[in-house]
Amino acid sequence: MYRAVSSHRETHFTGSEMVRDIVIGMSDGLTVPFALAAGLSGAVASGHVVLIAGIAEMAAGSIAMGLGGYLAARSEHESYVSERAREEGEIDTKRDAEILEVREVFQKYGLTGDALETATSAIISNRRTWVDFMMKEELGLEEPDPKRALRSALTIGLAYIAGGIVPLTPYALNLTLSQALTWSVVLTLIALFAFGALKGRFTGSSVWKSAVQTMFVGAVASGAAFLIARLVSGMGA
Amino acid sequence: MYRAVSSHRETHFTGSEMVRDIVIGMSDGLTVPFALAAGLSGAVASGHVVLIAGIAEMAAGSIAMGLGGYLAARSEHESYVSERAREEGEIDTKRDAEILEVREVFQKYGLTGDALETATSAIISNRRTWVDFMMKEELGLEEPDPKRALRSALTIGLAYIAGGIVPLTPYALNLTLSQALTWSVVLTLIALFAFGALKGRFTGSSVWKSAVQTMFVGAVASGAAFLIARLVSGMGA
Repeated sequence: MYRAVSSHRETHFTGSEMVRDIVIGMSDGLTVPFALAAGLSGAVASGHVVLIAGIAEMAAGSIAMGLGGYLAARSEHESYVSERAREEGEIDTKRDAEILEVREVFQKYGLTGDALETATSAIISNRRTWVDFMMKEELGLEEPDPKRALRSALTIGLAYIAGGIVPLTPYALNLTLSQALTWSVVLTLIALFAFGALKGRFTGSSVWKSAVQTMFVGAVASGAAFLIARLVSGMGA
Repeated sequence: MYRAVSSHRETHFTGSEMVRDIVIGMSDGLTVPFALAAGLSGAVASGHVVLIAGIAEMAAGSIAMGLGGYLAARSEHESYVSERAREEGEIDTKRDAEILEVREVFQKYGLTGDALETATSAIISNRRTWVDFMMKEELGLEEPDPKRALRSALTIGLAYIAGGIVPLTPYALNLTLSQALTWSVVLTLIALFAFGALKGRFTGSSVWKSAVQTMFVGAVASGAAFLIARLVSGMGA
């Protein structure tokens, strides 16, 4: 029983972090290079320039997001360590206030009388578990997996590139700029819809709603980029 | 005393979410338009095209990230609601297993004997607090603030634009392309350094380390974009 319960927990957490990283990378990878290419197609005459800009964006975006994710995961770990040290310090210097905080947590969960007193005494009898308890209950923090940073960086970066390949492929083929734009729009909207549906399935929200919303974000971002690039190129000409 | 403790908690959380959103938006806003502009400068002859591409990227990126942040915050809320419903269902259908899970949580915190029994009985005596307890202890989830989604979207989007203005300004001035690139590199590395230092200060990690790391991410992403854009433009020519 215990093993079953704890393995259930683990799949829940690891799965959701991996899915979250893929969603982070692929959402932007499908949207931003697509929107940029569409925007430039409205302002620049050459499909070759659109492709170069798209690939440069894909390189920049995947590295910025991947490395950014790596550093974010690392700093989450550091922040946990420093908050934990602060909590340990407070247990030494403001012991009474911290005992009161343990009591308040249990009161919030409906404990009163003897149950409240024995539970509070038990928690504060061991310094390490007392700190664990306060980290989770007061600050909502759990110790992050130190191996997560690298895995997270690679997942986000590769998902970004995988996403970016879809809208850029038509510009690499032997098509006119307006044909490439049309194919890029069609393929990317389909990919955004499918990705949104999968995302909804994995995150447990409505599949259709997620599909339509994801497609909508891509359409709005690229529509805006298209109009703004047109405007700017008109002003400069 | 109670008020002091709870206001301390609130500033802690709200502050860190706002800072996190600014960091998310500005990290990418300073990095990606910069890297794209630098990459295109190595591949395209016209500063005007670089500026248009940069502005299109800024529009696409800020909307994609802002709207993405909005939907992420909303789906976090939906996911909380659906996980909560599942947990409520499990309390009804797998009552014994769920009681065992409460016991395991308290055992992990070092409770034994009477303290373990009374604390467990107290938690399971009220269905709502029992679910609260399992959401926090088993799944590490807290009810997200429903007003957060819009605030988060605007913060991320505006931070992205604020970041993107720095590297693009030189391309809007009356400079040669290589002068604009040089100024863009200098200004952006200074801005990344300053932003990294502030980020380190707010998140409680080392100011110098954060400054150097943030500058490093921008430099690597734009260096890679520069080289890849050069390569691609060479192949196509």
